[in-house]
Amino acid sequence: MVETARLAACVRAERDRAETLFETMRSLSFDGIGITRPAYSAAESRVHEALAHEARALGLEVTRDFAANTYMTRRGRDPLRPAILIGSHLDSVRQGGNFDGAAGVVGGLIALAALDAAGVRPDCDLTVMGVRAEESAWFNVSYIGSRAALGRLPAEALTARRVDTGRDLASHLAEAGGEPGRIAAGEAFLDPTRIRAFLELHIEQGPLLESEQIPVGIVTGIPGNFRHPDVRVRGEWGHVGLLRDWRRDALLAASEFALALDRLWSERQRPGREMAATIGRFGTDPALHALTKVPGEVAFSLDVRSCVADDLAELEGEVARLARDIAARRGVTFEFGPRTGVPPGPMDPEILGGFERCAVALGIRTRRLGSPASHDAAAFAAAGIPVGMLFTRNANGSHNPAEAMRMDDLLDATAILAGWIAEQAGR
Amino acid sequence: MVETARLAACVRAERDRAETLFETMRSLSFDGIGITRPAYSAAESRVHEALAHEARALGLEVTRDFAANTYMTRRGRDPLRPAILIGSHLDSVRQGGNFDGAAGVVGGLIALAALDAAGVRPDCDLTVMGVRAEESAWFNVSYIGSRAALGRLPAEALTARRVDTGRDLASHLAEAGGEPGRIAAGEAFLDPTRIRAFLELHIEQGPLLESEQIPVGIVTGIPGNFRHPDVRVRGEWGHVGLLRDWRRDALLAASEFALALDRLWSERQRPGREMAATIGRFGTDPALHALTKVPGEVAFSLDVRSCVADDLAELEGEVARLARDIAARRGVTFEFGPRTGVPPGPMDPEILGGFERCAVALGIRTRRLGSPASHDAAAFAAAGIPVGMLFTRNANGSHNPAEAMRMDDLLDATAILAGWIAEQAGR
Repeated sequence: MVETARLAACVRAERDRAETLFETMRSLSFDGIGITRPAYSAAESRVHEALAHEARALGLEVTRDFAANTYMTRRGRDPLRPAILIGSHLDSVRQGGNFDGAAGVVGGLIALAALDAAGVRPDCDLTVMGVRAEESAWFNVSYIGSRAALGRLPAEALTARRVDTGRDLASHLAEAGGEPGRIAAGEAFLDPTRIRAFLELHIEQGPLLESEQIPVGIVTGIPGNFRHPDVRVRGEWGHVGLLRDWRRDALLAASEFALALDRLWSERQRPGREMAATIGRFGTDPALHALTKVPGEVAFSLDVRSCVADDLAELEGEVARLARDIAARRGVTFEFGPRTGVPPGPMDPEILGGFERCAVALGIRTRRLGSPASHDAAAFAAAGIPVGMLFTRNANGSHNPAEAMRMDDLLDATAILAGWIAEQAGR
Repeated sequence: MVETARLAACVRAERDRAETLFETMRSLSFDGIGITRPAYSAAESRVHEALAHEARALGLEVTRDFAANTYMTRRGRDPLRPAILIGSHLDSVRQGGNFDGAAGVVGGLIALAALDAAGVRPDCDLTVMGVRAEESAWFNVSYIGSRAALGRLPAEALTARRVDTGRDLASHLAEAGGEPGRIAAGEAFLDPTRIRAFLELHIEQGPLLESEQIPVGIVTGIPGNFRHPDVRVRGEWGHVGLLRDWRRDALLAASEFALALDRLWSERQRPGREMAATIGRFGTDPALHALTKVPGEVAFSLDVRSCVADDLAELEGEVARLARDIAARRGVTFEFGPRTGVPPGPMDPEILGGFERCAVALGIRTRRLGSPASHDAAAFAAAGIPVGMLFTRNANGSHNPAEAMRMDDLLDATAILAGWIAEQAGR
């Protein structure tokens, strides 16, 4: 087996390649303020092509599936052994940052380059996957690319409309070279029995690692969620002169719901049972509201998440109770509208332990932490594939242009990833 | 002096004319759901022209001022005596109703027709004024038409932009045939010393009269207000996975402000010291928000009103304290942005008493009540003109397509108005 220190040195030697790739991706999708790579957009496709170009230069085989995901593969010695996949997504939110998602694909590519440079000849295929359409802000649907590859995306998701264009997923997917008909038919490109592990490296989206000065986190679980992208609170429009007792103000009702939901979160969360409740979009209707009208309707989005399936079910009941109570007291109605949900994604305990062993051997400080955010890894876990996930420290949150990942931290996380692969598949 | 009962019969005989005028106005400004007559729009101008046409048929003289207000005058016997003005506005909010404002102009026209039919020859000019641009939802400026006529509209109001078109008041005013240069110069079309009284008839915008089954209300005062059309709460945009303690959620801060403001209202209001606090527009920015982002900014409008100047000043201090407290606890900032304000408009006690005498003589039930809404009458009161105002009962609030005024109630209120004019100026 290859010496740990030598492999780590080979990973560190990949710093320039990683920096160049990030710079290329930034230049292909900078919007003037941050990074905007909508799911199944031309910008997202350009970034897939740039990484495929680099992969070919590294001697990897490049293929695409019918969901337009990109696979970059180093062939293993034994074609019959299930492959190890390393992947993350390449889309971003509007005015997002350059590392959320992309760091996992760059990390995968430089891990493969370093393993090769260190002389590791894997016994199985090692595949870096550039995943499409993970950011559910675009279609209000979770894990589109990864679930489509696994044949697990519900056909009705193809009718979801992208929030900026209003066009449906089928149309955007076809434009990016995908084949919506095969997704609708439930066809699978990836066979879970042929995948030994799915590994994802991602920036942390909270400030925990940063605040504790720990470069790499080992993820213990990915939350499931329930979501209502378009909740409507309806009261009654009224003149600004309407007396207080006669108002049925939809804004006050929705505001009370937002604060009660936050209080529920604060009362229920426990260490190891992380959860989150977020209202991301909220507002009166610009076509109807006015300075001098009591709001008769408010629309908002709701995302509630937890790593514990029981907690999630309980929270869903509590949320419905909150709304019923406010509706009764304030004379308004709550319509929650369409619901989507995904179950929590558990991590594989053996992979977790393996990551920790490698980190100790490399002298890299880590800590275990639950992911409050969703990740493609959860879709692979749901398909029964053993999953492991690493976070890199990140100062300024994510989904904003200021997200900040130190290159040293990415190289540390990649060294752990490469070390685990060498331990499992090297010789 | 003309017999009260005979004058009331002449008012009742005007029912068809009133109904026809409302139908005409509706057909000129129906938007498919309600009535939309933006301030200084073509729809508003069409309605001014339709009423001027009717006024000419009634033998009234029609003139316009440089703010494009319409004056319809029955000449009095003595040209030196100050005139009695009867007026209200002809614009509406978006998807509003057909009676808010327009009822006062129709009521004025049929009052003049009835006085003529009853043989009343007034000793002074009687002028019905169709006022422009009272609905501050359009330019976020109060009493544009009436203040401009009185030479009391600040010149900077001409740069205010209409919320739907983005074009400024000067441009819209010129398009409607007005002369912004004369307004900027502070020129006055109306001389307060030449106006004996300004009378306004308006639908009630609350349900008080409806709930007490009283057809006509006698207004005791019009509230002043302070307004901030564009308050900004700034926290920090974050990923949906951000831990609770690390969030600076602008939505939760703004929601807390909305609820605290409502609580302040409920604690401070007293009978006879009516007030109101309204957030009419409220929302996260559609260009930046997402299902999966913690809101970093919320914008909202604020309107706080009271008939008591001291209460208004005290409320303004309390509102600032609320915002400072929430900002400190939640790590956000409040920027209140531009402020506008108008002082409360007191009603003339002698006119109030006169209205009550006429109502008793006519056998019409009335009650006194404070107006929680703003009205042009307040601009005339601020210019030192004696002002009187009547409300008609209205079932469904105003600023919405369902506002409902009974024609019988309008005729009752008009009979009181005409009775007072006959008492003061008849012979």
